[in-house]
Amino acid sequence: MGSAAHARASSSPSADCAGLAVKVAVAGASGYTGLELLRIVQRHPQLELAAATSEQRAGQGIGEAFPALRGLFSQAFEPLHPERLAGRAEAAFVCLPHASAAPVVAALRAQGLRVVDLSADFRLRDRALYEEWYGPHKAPELFGQAVYGLPEVYREELRGAALIAAAGCYPTGALLPMLPLLRAGVVRPAPIAVDAKSGVSGAGRSLQEGYLFGELDSNLRAYKVAAHRHAPEMEQEARRAAEAGGASGAVSVTFVPQLLPVIRGIATTVFLHCAREFSAAQARELLQAAYADAPFVRVLPEGETPSLSAVRGSNFCDVGVFADERSGLLVCLSALDNLVKGASGQAVQCLNLACGWPETLGLEEAPLTP
Amino acid sequence: MGSAAHARASSSPSADCAGLAVKVAVAGASGYTGLELLRIVQRHPQLELAAATSEQRAGQGIGEAFPALRGLFSQAFEPLHPERLAGRAEAAFVCLPHASAAPVVAALRAQGLRVVDLSADFRLRDRALYEEWYGPHKAPELFGQAVYGLPEVYREELRGAALIAAAGCYPTGALLPMLPLLRAGVVRPAPIAVDAKSGVSGAGRSLQEGYLFGELDSNLRAYKVAAHRHAPEMEQEARRAAEAGGASGAVSVTFVPQLLPVIRGIATTVFLHCAREFSAAQARELLQAAYADAPFVRVLPEGETPSLSAVRGSNFCDVGVFADERSGLLVCLSALDNLVKGASGQAVQCLNLACGWPETLGLEEAPLTP
Amino acid sequence: MGSAAHARASSSPSADCAGLAVKVAVAGASGYTGLELLRIVQRHPQLELAAATSEQRAGQGIGEAFPALRGLFSQAFEPLHPERLAGRAEAAFVCLPHASAAPVVAALRAQGLRVVDLSADFRLRDRALYEEWYGPHKAPELFGQAVYGLPEVYREELRGAALIAAAGCYPTGALLPMLPLLRAGVVRPAPIAVDAKSGVSGAGRSLQEGYLFGELDSNLRAYKVAAHRHAPEMEQEARRAAEAGGASGAVSVTFVPQLLPVIRGIATTVFLHCAREFSAAQARELLQAAYADAPFVRVLPEGETPSLSAVRGSNFCDVGVFADERSGLLVCLSALDNLVKGASGQAVQCLNLACGWPETLGLEEAPLTP
Amino acid sequence: MGSAAHARASSSPSADCAGLAVKVAVAGASGYTGLELLRIVQRHPQLELAAATSEQRAGQGIGEAFPALRGLFSQAFEPLHPERLAGRAEAAFVCLPHASAAPVVAALRAQGLRVVDLSADFRLRDRALYEEWYGPHKAPELFGQAVYGLPEVYREELRGAALIAAAGCYPTGALLPMLPLLRAGVVRPAPIAVDAKSGVSGAGRSLQEGYLFGELDSNLRAYKVAAHRHAPEMEQEARRAAEAGGASGAVSVTFVPQLLPVIRGIATTVFLHCAREFSAAQARELLQAAYADAPFVRVLPEGETPSLSAVRGSNFCDVGVFADERSGLLVCLSALDNLVKGASGQAVQCLNLACGWPETLGLEEAPLTP
Repeated sequence: MGSAAHARASSSPSADCAGLAVKVAVAGASGYTGLELLRIVQRHPQLELAAATSEQRAGQGIGEAFPALRGLFSQAFEPLHPERLAGRAEAAFVCLPHASAAPVVAALRAQGLRVVDLSADFRLRDRALYEEWYGPHKAPELFGQAVYGLPEVYREELRGAALIAAAGCYPTGALLPMLPLLRAGVVRPAPIAVDAKSGVSGAGRSLQEGYLFGELDSNLRAYKVAAHRHAPEMEQEARRAAEAGGASGAVSVTFVPQLLPVIRGIATTVFLHCAREFSAAQARELLQAAYADAPFVRVLPEGETPSLSAVRGSNFCDVGVFADERSGLLVCLSALDNLVKGASGQAVQCLNLACGWPETLGLEEAPLTP
Repeated sequence: MGSAAHARASSSPSADCAGLAVKVAVAGASGYTGLELLRIVQRHPQLELAAATSEQRAGQGIGEAFPALRGLFSQAFEPLHPERLAGRAEAAFVCLPHASAAPVVAALRAQGLRVVDLSADFRLRDRALYEEWYGPHKAPELFGQAVYGLPEVYREELRGAALIAAAGCYPTGALLPMLPLLRAGVVRPAPIAVDAKSGVSGAGRSLQEGYLFGELDSNLRAYKVAAHRHAPEMEQEARRAAEAGGASGAVSVTFVPQLLPVIRGIATTVFLHCAREFSAAQARELLQAAYADAPFVRVLPEGETPSLSAVRGSNFCDVGVFADERSGLLVCLSALDNLVKGASGQAVQCLNLACGWPETLGLEEAPLTP
Repeated sequence: MGSAAHARASSSPSADCAGLAVKVAVAGASGYTGLELLRIVQRHPQLELAAATSEQRAGQGIGEAFPALRGLFSQAFEPLHPERLAGRAEAAFVCLPHASAAPVVAALRAQGLRVVDLSADFRLRDRALYEEWYGPHKAPELFGQAVYGLPEVYREELRGAALIAAAGCYPTGALLPMLPLLRAGVVRPAPIAVDAKSGVSGAGRSLQEGYLFGELDSNLRAYKVAAHRHAPEMEQEARRAAEAGGASGAVSVTFVPQLLPVIRGIATTVFLHCAREFSAAQARELLQAAYADAPFVRVLPEGETPSLSAVRGSNFCDVGVFADERSGLLVCLSALDNLVKGASGQAVQCLNLACGWPETLGLEEAPLTP
Repeated sequence: MGSAAHARASSSPSADCAGLAVKVAVAGASGYTGLELLRIVQRHPQLELAAATSEQRAGQGIGEAFPALRGLFSQAFEPLHPERLAGRAEAAFVCLPHASAAPVVAALRAQGLRVVDLSADFRLRDRALYEEWYGPHKAPELFGQAVYGLPEVYREELRGAALIAAAGCYPTGALLPMLPLLRAGVVRPAPIAVDAKSGVSGAGRSLQEGYLFGELDSNLRAYKVAAHRHAPEMEQEARRAAEAGGASGAVSVTFVPQLLPVIRGIATTVFLHCAREFSAAQARELLQAAYADAPFVRVLPEGETPSLSAVRGSNFCDVGVFADERSGLLVCLSALDNLVKGASGQAVQCLNLACGWPETLGLEEAPLTP
């Protein structure tokens, strides 16, 4: 998808954003990704919180509703009325569930706001595929208009972008290690096996029995095996990379998501079949070259494996690569914080690019270790 | 390996063990697997604890050294002197590190004790392979004499066996789901990808920085990727099953072990390439048939995934199977408690068979849930 | 309260229960305490499960509804109809919420079943106090008829008892260390400060935001500070012991309950003011004497502190005692598994006594360590 | 202790620090508090890392040794040579164990560096008491020269201070709620009971069996009951406040420290005896007034309890207060992150004051929630 195809904010990024702070609204601010955005916006030198919406918490002060944030925000949550945000905010993050997000995104775009959508509503490029997994699209006029918000791949397209669909948490962890290898044509696009383990904050604050501490602590269980809707998102981007690498034919990602007894973090194992003899060292070099200018992807030295604790609370995605010469499999491992690089940090990284700012603004925080 | 090849206790199993309780020694009883054996022996109706050895704790009462066991045992730990166990015990569990175990096993066998070894020293059939991974074997005269202690596969060979090498924790979780499929010839023996996540008790009570709570909680990290010595053990048994299924050629298991922030449990994902079109339902039926008489393998119904909490503290291994038709991959999932079915429970299950008792004796405990 | 005051089953305990297995029903069997009762009944040599009720799971097989129990039970959950249990069960455990339990208990008693109630409905002896904390009592005719199910204190009264109100989880942890000291008159009954930390299973499987893994992991928070309804239960028993110890005047327990990021376990600190100079050694001796015949209370040697892991999955309550000579405070610490000694194990211990069996029947399981 | 008694840096704070960044060394930078200091220094607008010392990691790059910090620091760890730091750093944080810290502090002071010591070596004012708990003091010439680094109490004394003994983690959590009440004379200074639960990072990265994940997860245990060396530190400050409040006579803190299965956080319960009738509302008002200008103490509204998750990763200390009118006890609860407000954040807060900067510089980070 060429950058010309994307909707763009009317003026140039620099005219748009540089200098003065940009006022942002967070729609759906009381969920986990919304709260994480509040945390990042609070320390971001160029962003100013204009509004935080939450139907459930409307009227409550942010710090009153969430004791962790007591004393840090003067605002109260308000109900979401896109039309009323027009004069108040220049950009918005939309943290609403799939399907609910699309009409809000459309309304905000209609008001001229730059929008970063954290839902899946604008990530897929094939509408039939979208509707197979998510049901009827509720803002079809905008379908296909968004830049896919994976800055390490779409950095150029993101500059000045007016509508951004931040990449999903699982896809980010699976795609960052595999895309450069697919683009280089050194691994085959089918079958790709992805085994990912996610902290429970990925499910938001859903009141479901399976997310209770008593059910999840000291536990691990898979769910939606080979049937999770992040698989087509992975396949879309894997296909694009594979085609760039000269591959044709089938692309398949067999995706096994699992719930981990941790709050934050996704650890991903990707099993790839080498298209030709290829060593771990070569793969590592290829990844290092691909991410030489990517401030948030850390390709680990030989023998090191990523760990959730090394990225906790940060926007980093750490990547390690190993080879099993006997089987011809490459094993890529990644780790990221699903609420930061897997969601809100990534959204801010995208907005930074869209506004013409340094990609890292507000995201320099070191991981919380231990 | 035919059962005739194995060393056997002199008399028939029933004459050997039935009726009177069998006196057992636990060598290396103060480690995690040793303690778990103490727990099982304490409730086992046919076993009586004759001796519990520990160099480090020698002289301390069991309950004095381990407050959890206070009041449950009258014995004290003693230093290990195999020759002094002769008159006192008829069987022994050896819970010593790899390489240290072999000479102790040999000494105990020389005294006529039936031995279940929980180390890797007698699991492999290829001595060169053993020495490649573990160094020189310290009781070469016994190499190849042990029955591989995976009762679901070697039930007949285990009856009356005098030397048993209890299967490893990771191999048990990986092999139970894959072996029937390999034996039936419906999946290919290469490449097999295994992504396994283990509770930290699998590493014993090792004083290493990486096992500290501060390093491991809220964390997950892989280690020894495609370089763990349980891989050759998996390949040995996978090869045997594949040959039974008519396959020839390479067998490869690419094994990714990971440390999970839980104390007990191994969750395993096995990615298998179908040799021909094959559905999850067919695979499930095949597994159900294979384990119809296996009291500790529970093949889950369609759509259910195993979870660590459903097996915690028990000798069960739960198995689920899924298919990705587009990619031709079968995804098998299993869960077991690494200290029970992955070690001490399995060892007792083996001894039960060796003694001619019901396989389930002392192992009927329901999982600790939640 | 003398034992004569209690309702009793018509015949003598030995005639009642010895020899043949007793058929029991578990009402409210799908909650955490209900499941724990199923686990214990399954291994109890004298109990046979006659019925397991659950409105929510009615019709589902036990192992179908709870994968951990798959293969261990042939029964299905059924809706609760007390009158239909008459011919089928001789005893019942009632695991229903406070207030819902009372009428069910009354109906089961009317059918002649021996009942162990795990709710708070029959624990208090002062009806006004009950109604202040729990609202109108729904089976007032039975109020005051139950034996308080703390076997270490009411062992004699429990023999043959027909209605038993198993002591609460927090009260058990607070009372076992303090009662012998109050009875001996060496500590003052006011003010007593109790700081208790409970695993989240104490709250059952309630779908509340605060019990989600994302809210509770890596966290600790107090709730209902000095306002929890277990405080009057503690005070009732503390008063009785203090009176036996010759104290008069006020009795007060200031109770601070806290939620701990663990599934099972209650750790309790009790701060007591010495009535006269008194050393930790003397207190320890006093406790050891008081519990010399109590198989489940382990008074720890000097310097040892109880830990949750030492009692996990078992019916033990471990107790340690320390003195601060400068301040004249005695510090008692206890640890128990809230689902076992704090609920279901205690209920079975009570039934064992009521049936004239050894107190430990079905409860000999060693703690799950680690 | 009047501020005149303290050693002071030669010039005025503003001349000293304002404008240009201050170069700081972190001695003992590879432990948990050292790493936390690196994280804070990295984002602090006025601090620049001049040196990070570690004997164990000397020569390794910071990010090489600690993957979480990869890419964030260009420096390598170096061995500690106080004399070589002279020209390079103007201030130092000393994160060394008790007793090892004192001579290093002395050497650094001799070089003219402003020093914040995170050990206990300069916290006590009574040398005999120090030596009773910690052994011979190794820099007696400086004993009594440090300002006690609890900025909420010693804000004025800290301005310009050259030697600061940052308050201990447990004392901070216990003192912040109790001091204003003691100073107001509304509670009695004896007996004070403190029950505190600490995340394991408080113990640093010590290789002790009790800190292994397998021993600590799902667990809680007390240690050094009424025998922990933080008790005299609490008593020292409690006495000072009580005297200010007009109390005379004994001061005693009975302190029960406990290890919690979390990495970060200390939750503290303080039981105080009211000196006169006093309500929770009055206590809350008093605390709110006392901390009106303290940016990091959040006194919670009625009915709210502090929680570790609300302060994780931040420099906040949250305080709640409750009263039990029947017993005359006030119950104060606090929560803080032991590595931040309990150690490194507090140290930076102290240095900010010493340098004449806003107290909050570099410490504005919102808690990591969830």
